[in-house]
Amino acid sequence: MGTSMVSQPVARIDQGYKKLVCVLAFTRVPGLSAATTLTLYPLGRPAKEMAPAGSKKGILERLDAGEIVIGDGGFVFALEKRGYVKAGPWTPEAAAEHPEAVRQLHREFLRAGSNVMQTFTFYASDDKLENRGNAVCFTGAQVNEAACDLAREVANEGDALVAGGVSQTPSYLSCKSETEVKAIFKKQMDVFVKKNVDFLIAEYFEHVEEAEWAVHVLKETGKPVAASLCIGPMGDMHGVTPGECAIRLVKAGADIVGVNCHFDPKTCVETVAMMKAAVEKAGLKAHFMVQPLAYHTPDCGCQGFIDLPEFPFALEPRVLTRWDMQHYAREAYNAGIRFIGGCCGFEPYHIRAVVEELAPERGILPEGSQKHGPWGSGLEMHTKPWVRARARRDYWEKLKPASGRPLCPSMSTPDSWGVTKGHPDLMQQREATTEDQLRPLFAKSESKC
Amino acid sequence: MGTSMVSQPVARIDQGYKKLVCVLAFTRVPGLSAATTLTLYPLGRPAKEMAPAGSKKGILERLDAGEIVIGDGGFVFALEKRGYVKAGPWTPEAAAEHPEAVRQLHREFLRAGSNVMQTFTFYASDDKLENRGNAVCFTGAQVNEAACDLAREVANEGDALVAGGVSQTPSYLSCKSETEVKAIFKKQMDVFVKKNVDFLIAEYFEHVEEAEWAVHVLKETGKPVAASLCIGPMGDMHGVTPGECAIRLVKAGADIVGVNCHFDPKTCVETVAMMKAAVEKAGLKAHFMVQPLAYHTPDCGCQGFIDLPEFPFALEPRVLTRWDMQHYAREAYNAGIRFIGGCCGFEPYHIRAVVEELAPERGILPEGSQKHGPWGSGLEMHTKPWVRARARRDYWEKLKPASGRPLCPSMSTPDSWGVTKGHPDLMQQREATTEDQLRPLFAKSESKC
Amino acid sequence: MGTSMVSQPVARIDQGYKKLVCVLAFTRVPGLSAATTLTLYPLGRPAKEMAPAGSKKGILERLDAGEIVIGDGGFVFALEKRGYVKAGPWTPEAAAEHPEAVRQLHREFLRAGSNVMQTFTFYASDDKLENRGNAVCFTGAQVNEAACDLAREVANEGDALVAGGVSQTPSYLSCKSETEVKAIFKKQMDVFVKKNVDFLIAEYFEHVEEAEWAVHVLKETGKPVAASLCIGPMGDMHGVTPGECAIRLVKAGADIVGVNCHFDPKTCVETVAMMKAAVEKAGLKAHFMVQPLAYHTPDCGCQGFIDLPEFPFALEPRVLTRWDMQHYAREAYNAGIRFIGGCCGFEPYHIRAVVEELAPERGILPEGSQKHGPWGSGLEMHTKPWVRARARRDYWEKLKPASGRPLCPSMSTPDSWGVTKGHPDLMQQREATTEDQLRPLFAKSESKC
Amino acid sequence: MGTSMVSQPVARIDQGYKKLVCVLAFTRVPGLSAATTLTLYPLGRPAKEMAPAGSKKGILERLDAGEIVIGDGGFVFALEKRGYVKAGPWTPEAAAEHPEAVRQLHREFLRAGSNVMQTFTFYASDDKLENRGNAVCFTGAQVNEAACDLAREVANEGDALVAGGVSQTPSYLSCKSETEVKAIFKKQMDVFVKKNVDFLIAEYFEHVEEAEWAVHVLKETGKPVAASLCIGPMGDMHGVTPGECAIRLVKAGADIVGVNCHFDPKTCVETVAMMKAAVEKAGLKAHFMVQPLAYHTPDCGCQGFIDLPEFPFALEPRVLTRWDMQHYAREAYNAGIRFIGGCCGFEPYHIRAVVEELAPERGILPEGSQKHGPWGSGLEMHTKPWVRARARRDYWEKLKPASGRPLCPSMSTPDSWGVTKGHPDLMQQREATTEDQLRPLFAKSESKC
Repeated sequence: MGTSMVSQPVARIDQGYKKLVCVLAFTRVPGLSAATTLTLYPLGRPAKEMAPAGSKKGILERLDAGEIVIGDGGFVFALEKRGYVKAGPWTPEAAAEHPEAVRQLHREFLRAGSNVMQTFTFYASDDKLENRGNAVCFTGAQVNEAACDLAREVANEGDALVAGGVSQTPSYLSCKSETEVKAIFKKQMDVFVKKNVDFLIAEYFEHVEEAEWAVHVLKETGKPVAASLCIGPMGDMHGVTPGECAIRLVKAGADIVGVNCHFDPKTCVETVAMMKAAVEKAGLKAHFMVQPLAYHTPDCGCQGFIDLPEFPFALEPRVLTRWDMQHYAREAYNAGIRFIGGCCGFEPYHIRAVVEELAPERGILPEGSQKHGPWGSGLEMHTKPWVRARARRDYWEKLKPASGRPLCPSMSTPDSWGVTKGHPDLMQQREATTEDQLRPLFAKSESKC
Repeated sequence: MGTSMVSQPVARIDQGYKKLVCVLAFTRVPGLSAATTLTLYPLGRPAKEMAPAGSKKGILERLDAGEIVIGDGGFVFALEKRGYVKAGPWTPEAAAEHPEAVRQLHREFLRAGSNVMQTFTFYASDDKLENRGNAVCFTGAQVNEAACDLAREVANEGDALVAGGVSQTPSYLSCKSETEVKAIFKKQMDVFVKKNVDFLIAEYFEHVEEAEWAVHVLKETGKPVAASLCIGPMGDMHGVTPGECAIRLVKAGADIVGVNCHFDPKTCVETVAMMKAAVEKAGLKAHFMVQPLAYHTPDCGCQGFIDLPEFPFALEPRVLTRWDMQHYAREAYNAGIRFIGGCCGFEPYHIRAVVEELAPERGILPEGSQKHGPWGSGLEMHTKPWVRARARRDYWEKLKPASGRPLCPSMSTPDSWGVTKGHPDLMQQREATTEDQLRPLFAKSESKC
Repeated sequence: MGTSMVSQPVARIDQGYKKLVCVLAFTRVPGLSAATTLTLYPLGRPAKEMAPAGSKKGILERLDAGEIVIGDGGFVFALEKRGYVKAGPWTPEAAAEHPEAVRQLHREFLRAGSNVMQTFTFYASDDKLENRGNAVCFTGAQVNEAACDLAREVANEGDALVAGGVSQTPSYLSCKSETEVKAIFKKQMDVFVKKNVDFLIAEYFEHVEEAEWAVHVLKETGKPVAASLCIGPMGDMHGVTPGECAIRLVKAGADIVGVNCHFDPKTCVETVAMMKAAVEKAGLKAHFMVQPLAYHTPDCGCQGFIDLPEFPFALEPRVLTRWDMQHYAREAYNAGIRFIGGCCGFEPYHIRAVVEELAPERGILPEGSQKHGPWGSGLEMHTKPWVRARARRDYWEKLKPASGRPLCPSMSTPDSWGVTKGHPDLMQQREATTEDQLRPLFAKSESKC
Repeated sequence: MGTSMVSQPVARIDQGYKKLVCVLAFTRVPGLSAATTLTLYPLGRPAKEMAPAGSKKGILERLDAGEIVIGDGGFVFALEKRGYVKAGPWTPEAAAEHPEAVRQLHREFLRAGSNVMQTFTFYASDDKLENRGNAVCFTGAQVNEAACDLAREVANEGDALVAGGVSQTPSYLSCKSETEVKAIFKKQMDVFVKKNVDFLIAEYFEHVEEAEWAVHVLKETGKPVAASLCIGPMGDMHGVTPGECAIRLVKAGADIVGVNCHFDPKTCVETVAMMKAAVEKAGLKAHFMVQPLAYHTPDCGCQGFIDLPEFPFALEPRVLTRWDMQHYAREAYNAGIRFIGGCCGFEPYHIRAVVEELAPERGILPEGSQKHGPWGSGLEMHTKPWVRARARRDYWEKLKPASGRPLCPSMSTPDSWGVTKGHPDLMQQREATTEDQLRPLFAKSESKC
């Protein structure tokens, strides 16, 4: 990959980048002039120029230095659409089963400008894999190891770090003890240590208590630890406010705190802003991260997009455009968040949009921007004159895109069954739900329509 | 790819497929019982069991036998989102520049059940590549050859054919002569002959006259030829009706006629139905194909989605769900169309939905369906009970998905500048449009808001 | 009414009208300057200055002279909302039962600028009144006579004509003979002759055949006859095209032809334009009228708003604004239609908007415009500065009003049971539908959801 | 009016009412059976059976007895549409200028079931009338006296009380002193005392301080006093919470407190619920009232519908249906509110819907319900079978009405200039805003689009 890119004539790239710089200079950043930014944008550097693994600047070094760190996008949803993940169980056996597909997605995010390759280990705990009947072919260790190898391989093709990730467990929902739940995290952590990831993320936790347990376990490695809940402004599933959650996670040892998944960028940025205010008010210190959905979710309740009737198979109309993403990146930056990425629904072009929005601050454009004119400027080369007339920021920034769905509403009434950990409905089982178990669920669902 | 799949325990697959069969039996096809279909669904066969290239059943053999042939999805838009194609020029240099990305997308469509691998040669004519400044690194021949090799490589991993494709040229729009335009097609055709593709497609033509010229050239190869216009019920850009277009293409020698791109499935099926009626009324014989957009476009005028204000960077809200696609597949089948695929916006999961809808008729499910429970049945394994309550056809078929965009309308007013081939505004130039050329376009566009 | 108005200081009115003229001069009418129109706008003249009844210029004199004639709005729907008409039977017994309410509505339309007071005799045929159980208290003759008196009383307060109206009958739908149906019209006509209305309108006919019969009867009076169908571009319920319908009505003797009700202004203007083109192509001569709904109905099939799921109790979101009405008036005028009014949903302010839009052409503003600043200019006197900022045409003309209903779609799927005259489902009965009769209807309706 | 009604055959009415009772019995009220309610519904009694003015049960007697009191609807907006009020100044000179129009609207609300006739004296303070240039023809006293006479005349035709109303003043907004503002209220109060209204309402106040001053003045009469703010859950324009506002108003002497105007029913009920909770928590005692808009306003900020871009000339798509109103009535009742009416946008049929929803609790149906079948039952007599299929509660209750506006969004971005009393932009002037003053307002408004 690096090779073919390097072989491209420098002259053409340079010319392209001057163009980019000019266009990007018309951004919202006050005081920025074309002159000052003209020389700032190097390409994503190819692999062979990279420092060897481990010798890169660490996540905390970057954040402490005030740098903006770009996360990656959502693997589970992207690979479901590509045919490698099954919606429902959502398990990541593809890391072992179809490594070429996972590797390709890592590469696309790297090209888009991601600085973090998260191991594709979401729901890769043994209890989850067993719970969903996917452990027949691959052990949890196999999946976790394969995921680490893929992330490292691609990270080394650019300036990216590898982050090992753990997420909430069926064991916690089924009211297992702290000891039992921590043992689950420990098993994944052993792989991360063996594979020497650069830092760790405990993410997608609905209950701050379980996230604290995860942080306790991860801190034992000595590596930097990020903790990210999947909550909104209403707080965790037991009603703990975002501010209180953040304080508890920082006290548990997290270096970086924030939220991911479950809500749209606007809601997530608002939630992290609440966390930041509380942490600072408490006299604590932390970095902040945000990795929201790429779906508009103005109609969500406390449990996020899981409750939306469209979840997970009819979310298409809600997907953010690249321009929505630039708005998000700016809002996150303005809120003081410096680890900015995405979760479910984020495709490579969404991450690229985040990176392009923050190009004036970061002085860098990703390799993938060679295939993208900022604010639609690539349309200058379109066949039709009226499409060339759209080659400008003003056009895209003001556009309110139509849904093409005149029979559909703009918002939904979310399900809100109001159950969480501790409620019998949420006890998890190893087997697929039987028809006898499904029938009352179907009935309950229909009676609410 | 084939290997890892084959190594999966047969028992699990069988069990999964019994389940699939049961669920699929609840389809709209009258008279179908679970019993009759239970044994009908083999997996997509792995590469080593495949007949050698060239020995597969040809496209016309399949269609003549009444088989349903599944096309692939849209490469240009999918690869734009993955970071390998630049919107505006839309040229396919990635086939040579980033083969791993193109190969991966081919594979995903194969896994989804596509029977046709179209060479990624859209807009790969020399005049287009030069016209858009992308020929610096790769010649047209290089791109076309690389694209053929990739399509063949993946086609051989399954039961798919390779189709070489040509599309409309800037030369025609710029009023070049029939001889000049045909020479362009000839250059691409030479590659297709050298690489021995299985059949040829002349697609994405707005003017039936240019499509006729393409068919003339392609027919010289002796291979089967398909001709597909990017028109809707209002006909081609010079006002020739769909029926008349189809008759002219059949008379020019096309074995298969139809439409692709520019309009949504509903509109495209309606247009091909008009073609079919006219061809039959004229006493001619042909097969019919449809490869629509994956975007809802109820508000388009005669030039299709190009005219929509959202084209090409804000089409997200219009993306069809997998359930919309099942509806499309059924409608296309009911209209008597037997070559059914997709164009811009079609992701692998969209093609899989088409294949799953037609599983009762075809007796086959693709490899990719191992990662998809029909009609949402995979949700039976979801953590939350209210999401398990969505594991049923009735739920997804009736759902009207919300846009999550309460500030956006459901339809747009398309641009309609009313210019086409012959109008000075449509003369193409090799260079990117200059700022001086853009300014009046911007002004014209704004005055119409 | 006239008196209190006349007592207002002339100075203030003049000043107001100068203002109006200035604002109105910024209209779409090319070549119009403030200077030329400054003196053209007299007030609606009070009753005592009016010529005695009968001595006014007749409807054909006005139309032949090229004048624009303004119709009134919809009585049935307006009085239903005011509590005097029952939705379902829709009969006009209020003319006898609550004359003060009917008189007040006539006055409001007169103030708004209507030149025609239609007698409130919609569905006032004896067969309809009996059919719906409303004839117990008042005979058809009583209702028709009372309606004529009220229309005449108010017409004499201004420069308006009285039009007696007949509409389609249950007898026709129930397949009664031409003789029987004509006898029904004859009974109403006898009242109109006795009360000496100025002209006659046969309106709200779904089948051109029945309208022809009505014209035959009405022509016997020697008074001018207008014939208006409730059809759209798809023609009457038996599939006769608008053009053919118009030709048949002109040949039957109608002086004025057009459409009313069932569709929105855009659709109705389009339909009358088709009628006009056909009549002119046939070498015939007629005037044209349009009296559409005040509801947006882009989603209607051939039977119009009756088929919309929202009919008749949830049409609120579809009501046109006054600015929509100005657009309608201009479109109707540009299409060459000179009798321009409204039907169901038209409130007095809608008619006033039509009159204000055409003020430049007609040189007249209605009395009611004293209570309305053109294009929102009255807001100059609003308390809040940001509302004063809306006191301009540009603001209101471009506004796309939000529905405030994020859970609702923008279009509906209309019922389309596909039955019309001749189908047993449409045989009318005198009694209210019984529960036994309703049950299968409810079931049929629900199975289509 | 009473006479013609009384002359109707009792048999028919009784039969109709039995029907109504049956249908109404299918309501949400648990434990209600057709048998228990069958005899409960008397008609609105005609005038001659009424007790003489002054001898009716007073407002507090009714509320203390636990009765539900039904308010009337919005005069200003209804009469604007009928052509008697000018949007912008919104002054009520029609009471003197066109008494027949005001009388008719009172009657319609009485027929719809209103128990309160509010004098049409909104913005009838001298400073407002002068401020808007409408005092030339009529003095404030003339307008106020005429309004009292009209309200009394119609109230005596049924069982309704007359409420004299004062509302916020330009003087307060222009920072006049407490003494000056109170003098304004005093002048209107003198008329109300002279005309002996039954009770007083201080309504449409954005600042609780001004409302307190109004209550102080009105309390001097010894009549019952209601105080109603035009605020939402965010509180008054100076940020005082609804609860605190309510407590201050009760302490100032108000017997009834609540909100009116500015927000939709849902928001208003929520706000009054906050008031009620605070008053009760403070150990105080009061009755509660709610008179919301008839427009859906989910997108409002703290200043309500004034800020919506659609205010006041494009609110049509937001109008509530009668079914929305039944939902509102039930919600208000469930929240413990017993004075339930409407404000801007409420037409007579809206009030009737409120009364019909609460018929099971109140044992009364209004005269106007003779012209309305509950839950659409009148459609049983419709011509078309598919419309008869809509004659049921289930149909209308579940319907999500379409807007018919596919180019419009469902929500707006409200203006939020963030200025209130004390800000120079809000100083009121007697003259209409000049063009020089308007220009910067237009510019400010456009720059925010």
